[in-house]
Amino acid sequence: MTLRQQVVNIAKNAASAARILAGLTTCEKNKILEEMAESLNKNKGAILKANKKDIALAMKVKLSGALIDRLALNEKRILDMSNCLLSVAKLNDAVGSEIKSWDVPSGLKIHKVRVPIGVIAIIYESRPNVTSDCIGLCFKSGNSVILRGGSEALNSNLAIFKTIERVIKKNGLPKGTVNFIATKDRQAIDILLKLNGYIDLVMPRGGEALIKKVVSSSRIPVIKHYKGICHVYVDDHADLNMAEKICFNAKVQRPGVCNAMESMLVHCDVAARFLPGMLKKFKDAGVEIRGCPVTQRIGKAGIKRVTGKDYRTEYLSLILSVKVVDSLKQAIEHINAYGSHHSDSIITDDELNAKEFLKKVDSACVYVNASTRFTDGNQFGMGAEIGISTDKLHARGPMALEELTTYKYVIYGNGQVRA
Amino acid sequence: MTLRQQVVNIAKNAASAARILAGLTTCEKNKILEEMAESLNKNKGAILKANKKDIALAMKVKLSGALIDRLALNEKRILDMSNCLLSVAKLNDAVGSEIKSWDVPSGLKIHKVRVPIGVIAIIYESRPNVTSDCIGLCFKSGNSVILRGGSEALNSNLAIFKTIERVIKKNGLPKGTVNFIATKDRQAIDILLKLNGYIDLVMPRGGEALIKKVVSSSRIPVIKHYKGICHVYVDDHADLNMAEKICFNAKVQRPGVCNAMESMLVHCDVAARFLPGMLKKFKDAGVEIRGCPVTQRIGKAGIKRVTGKDYRTEYLSLILSVKVVDSLKQAIEHINAYGSHHSDSIITDDELNAKEFLKKVDSACVYVNASTRFTDGNQFGMGAEIGISTDKLHARGPMALEELTTYKYVIYGNGQVRA
Repeated sequence: MTLRQQVVNIAKNAASAARILAGLTTCEKNKILEEMAESLNKNKGAILKANKKDIALAMKVKLSGALIDRLALNEKRILDMSNCLLSVAKLNDAVGSEIKSWDVPSGLKIHKVRVPIGVIAIIYESRPNVTSDCIGLCFKSGNSVILRGGSEALNSNLAIFKTIERVIKKNGLPKGTVNFIATKDRQAIDILLKLNGYIDLVMPRGGEALIKKVVSSSRIPVIKHYKGICHVYVDDHADLNMAEKICFNAKVQRPGVCNAMESMLVHCDVAARFLPGMLKKFKDAGVEIRGCPVTQRIGKAGIKRVTGKDYRTEYLSLILSVKVVDSLKQAIEHINAYGSHHSDSIITDDELNAKEFLKKVDSACVYVNASTRFTDGNQFGMGAEIGISTDKLHARGPMALEELTTYKYVIYGNGQVRA
Repeated sequence: MTLRQQVVNIAKNAASAARILAGLTTCEKNKILEEMAESLNKNKGAILKANKKDIALAMKVKLSGALIDRLALNEKRILDMSNCLLSVAKLNDAVGSEIKSWDVPSGLKIHKVRVPIGVIAIIYESRPNVTSDCIGLCFKSGNSVILRGGSEALNSNLAIFKTIERVIKKNGLPKGTVNFIATKDRQAIDILLKLNGYIDLVMPRGGEALIKKVVSSSRIPVIKHYKGICHVYVDDHADLNMAEKICFNAKVQRPGVCNAMESMLVHCDVAARFLPGMLKKFKDAGVEIRGCPVTQRIGKAGIKRVTGKDYRTEYLSLILSVKVVDSLKQAIEHINAYGSHHSDSIITDDELNAKEFLKKVDSACVYVNASTRFTDGNQFGMGAEIGISTDKLHARGPMALEELTTYKYVIYGNGQVRA
């Protein structure tokens, strides 16, 4: 069989499985999710052994320590994966719930009801837990899933996948329920992305290059989980104590994630009071500051000049760009021009300024007086998330079970014909 | 300026206008919509003159009578366009409405609020009223719009567009609020479809070739308004009187639209009772029947054998394919395999059969005991529609003002940091 035939077969199987999955009850799905969770724990030996192979290969090709850490599994991480499946089992089922219903003058009764999307393809990099997390969320939402993980994690991903696949088989569900493209050949992705007759949605999760490739060659609708260039703006009416705590948290508490702050904007009227203490706090925590001329002047020695490129960079590390702005308006314009429409916060006690910021900043999540770090499915009370959409269509911000469904109109008549 | 520069400038202007439009009040938008409506009536002379040019060109290149009819304007049609803008002014504004709000344990208050999508590009064919209809709906939903109409309607579209553009200018709104790509050069579409940095959504409205072209080359999210291969299934538990009325209405009342029936499925147990009368009624109305072998046998002479291609064809005319099926299950499988996931109806008095059909048919609109002809924004009580989505992402079925919005999360804190 050619690679093309293999990929097409997977997509076909997934499409026919999706029709079966859409009809499963919540109870049936939860029981199987619990079995998946159990199977990961039971087979942790095989999974860890496969992971060792990946780690050895990664060391041989001299992957960075950070990447090897992302790749590495241990008993604790497998337990976390298992627990994630259990927590998905506990979430409310979105499928079948009514969004709204109404009667129309013709006498028809219209119900707008959530249904699974169908077939979801996920193309991801590195962390092997994504394999079981995505299977769990797609399965609970009644979708079949096609996974294509990073080649450096192939053995680990396959071991996790096969463990779960056995549970699917044991329960008499169709083969296409969960699918894994087990080749390092990148052509498989190109083939996959043209199969819009079978696949309903593709989600790339990874670096900029991967996302650009998917967007430029996909015929399937894409929801991007793109970078987070998040801002905190310290307004001239800010409680500066609160501002210091929030900015520090947004940058330092976990710098390697998409909802961490990458750029801090400060109103010029409070810059001289706010910046010295704030910059010292950052310095003590090992944060490298790249500042505008005013920031450099206030912060004295050791501050590198910020560039336009800095403002567009998701550092994902202890680096922060800092800009002093003349007005709220300038802050909003900067965020809309340089940000990634992910999460941005204003610190202010002025209600009108807050309102203006919340209205005009064009981002998925806009905050007043809170850290951007809260943009997260769990923190939002949605349970586990499959990612954070930086797109505007279908889903924006944290994506969980509801966002993995679409809807249909179910319409009851008693003989109506159109006049 | 090169074509590329022209198109990029349009997209840039549209993106910056979108930020202004998002902030307009409902009152401001309605007033301007009313002025647009008035301006169409006032300038009908110029519009009709431009339309005459298009008609003359169309005759010269020997376009079909049906196409020329779609293209032709008259006083009544211009009044309809004007009234459509007035009715959009009367619709509830979706922008700013709260979808839901809730508190989370951290103390944050989360509001999920509707906001405009941003920049919407619409690529369409033939009917010039689409120009003003789309401008009206996009403007009311706070989006800027980029229009690319069919080349055969270029003069008419431009006359309509310029009339409305003057209203936009007079009201001090930015130039990019409404945009029209006034070239017959098809390369303009290719350029446009790569501008995902400025344009948020593209909607192709037209034939299969146009839609395929857009899907295969767009980097911008696409919502398709694809063909309607709609079915009515007459169950063995159908009220056959009702079935006859509904099937006749679904096929004959207006055969040239996407929600008309193209395929009728009949359970074998009622075929001998139902088909003779039904087929005669169709014959009397001039409907050409293409039938399966059983249908041919029951209908006697004059019925052509249906092919697989027939089952996949949107006739948009007085032709109907008819198939006798062995079971509800076979009907559902046929619809899911050959249909276009648009609108399908079951005629039955059996509640369980109805439930099974409504659940398993994977279409935007599924009916019991009603004509498929009701799939329409107006009939659904949404007011004017911009089209009927045959996609599953973001919008499915009739698309009106709500479907032209996305949402953002507005989050109020009082100093929250992530632990």
